[in-house]
Amino acid sequence: MSTTLRGVLSPVVTPFDTDLQPDVARFVRHCRWLLERDVGLAVFGTNSEGNSLAVREKIALLEALVAAGLPPARMMPGTGCCALTDTVDLTRRAVALGCAGVLMLPPFYYKGVSDDGLFASYSEVIQRVGDARLRIYLYHIPPVSQVSITLPLIERLLAAYPGTIAGVKDSSGDMANTRAMLERFQPRGFDVFAGSENYLLATLRGGGAGCISATANVNPAAIAELARTWQASDADAKQAALDAVRAVFQKLPMIPALKAAIAHYGRDDGWATVRPPLVPLTAEQRAGLFAALQPTGFAMPGL
Amino acid sequence: MSTTLRGVLSPVVTPFDTDLQPDVARFVRHCRWLLERDVGLAVFGTNSEGNSLAVREKIALLEALVAAGLPPARMMPGTGCCALTDTVDLTRRAVALGCAGVLMLPPFYYKGVSDDGLFASYSEVIQRVGDARLRIYLYHIPPVSQVSITLPLIERLLAAYPGTIAGVKDSSGDMANTRAMLERFQPRGFDVFAGSENYLLATLRGGGAGCISATANVNPAAIAELARTWQASDADAKQAALDAVRAVFQKLPMIPALKAAIAHYGRDDGWATVRPPLVPLTAEQRAGLFAALQPTGFAMPGL
Repeated sequence: MSTTLRGVLSPVVTPFDTDLQPDVARFVRHCRWLLERDVGLAVFGTNSEGNSLAVREKIALLEALVAAGLPPARMMPGTGCCALTDTVDLTRRAVALGCAGVLMLPPFYYKGVSDDGLFASYSEVIQRVGDARLRIYLYHIPPVSQVSITLPLIERLLAAYPGTIAGVKDSSGDMANTRAMLERFQPRGFDVFAGSENYLLATLRGGGAGCISATANVNPAAIAELARTWQASDADAKQAALDAVRAVFQKLPMIPALKAAIAHYGRDDGWATVRPPLVPLTAEQRAGLFAALQPTGFAMPGL
Repeated sequence: MSTTLRGVLSPVVTPFDTDLQPDVARFVRHCRWLLERDVGLAVFGTNSEGNSLAVREKIALLEALVAAGLPPARMMPGTGCCALTDTVDLTRRAVALGCAGVLMLPPFYYKGVSDDGLFASYSEVIQRVGDARLRIYLYHIPPVSQVSITLPLIERLLAAYPGTIAGVKDSSGDMANTRAMLERFQPRGFDVFAGSENYLLATLRGGGAGCISATANVNPAAIAELARTWQASDADAKQAALDAVRAVFQKLPMIPALKAAIAHYGRDDGWATVRPPLVPLTAEQRAGLFAALQPTGFAMPGL
């Protein structure tokens, strides 16, 4: 666990310029806006199009954030790639820059791999990075990666690397699995993050650390507020309000919908660009998104 | 299509040294052994652990093959990565080195992407590489990539880039799909390769170009012979003999089994190493493999 990486983090969406290159200025601005709303920076996650970026592009963006004065203590970059050597290069750089943790996908091209193979993979990364400051949050997102972080695998990794294996993001969408992680591992200082704010209250009530959620890109203040005040009597009502906003985004392809919202509410069309294989929302989808958000009182003040 | 990339190619297995780094000398030696048996070099495929290699590692290996005097006219490196920029970098280098074609996976992290998004992805690569020598073989392997190259997508790509879209490797394992590709696209000079020698004879009888097969790493001469003599009266018997060998390997995890065979028949234990997340065969699996191969008359002369 880390003391600076609790509560709510966002897999920060990555802006691209007209040539599809990462847009550093917009990226820094959005990261700052999130931090000001008490949301940490899980850059290069699934919803960041992190796997549509080359390792060198991710390193350049991370260096730009740190150079802009943003605190690496609030950063948990995604560093898990298909190739062991890429994961090591990116993780090493993240640690050297002072990032408080990294969110690490298992290698995800080969399917049906064994826990032995995944254990070996994480072990090799830990040993090759060889830095006591390394804190790894395991990234369990079977609907996308198709490679699972099982409970027995966590058990083995925690036993072998208790200081380094710091937690998990559970994006299985299966609260029974999150509960099992909370019960077995959270008491040992292994921080369990829900993969969506839908499960934020349940995760916090179960002793967990918070959530790492796509929609924290657009609804950061309200999500972070629930994380701070979850023991108050209005917590269930606040959870319901978060769910209403999330439901609107979830009806559309998530990444282009997040970017369309930032473009719209921030009056900055450049934000709508996605890298292939993703495609932007159609005009009809965009109109539907904004119409559906209106009754929820959704806004993005200060954007 | 290419005139030098027909018949049988192998996704050449990648040897690693004790530090899990690619072993250039063993790699060149195995590539040469395959070429001498009339098998082309589809390096960095699925069975090459291609996606466990960083782009820089793949470029270094490709440069080493060319520097060793191996003919790029017989090379079809896998260059499709998750990130557009990685695919462009690697493809550009392959073309510059004179490779007759590249085998290109779709970006495979994001699932459920649209044909529009995949079309945009291939289009961007073609335009950014910007070289008339580029020949792309689309790589359809849904069991692993989980992202399909559909018939309508091929239709659109062929219409837009008739000189560049050169063919497909169909590793769906669905001969009905291969047949559909053969009927619709092969007559237009789009070369259809089966993803396994199990379908070699059927593919050639359907007018196809050949196969790109994992087991061509270990049984190259016999597979290449059927590709040359498929119109002879003993073709079905030859196909059955190939199938018998393939069936033995297919009962085990394919990549470690191929490497175990090369290590055993080539008397070179160093070959057995795989990169995580794969794991080597157990001693029991190895013994089972060699015992099952014996009645097939399997051998690897000249290794």
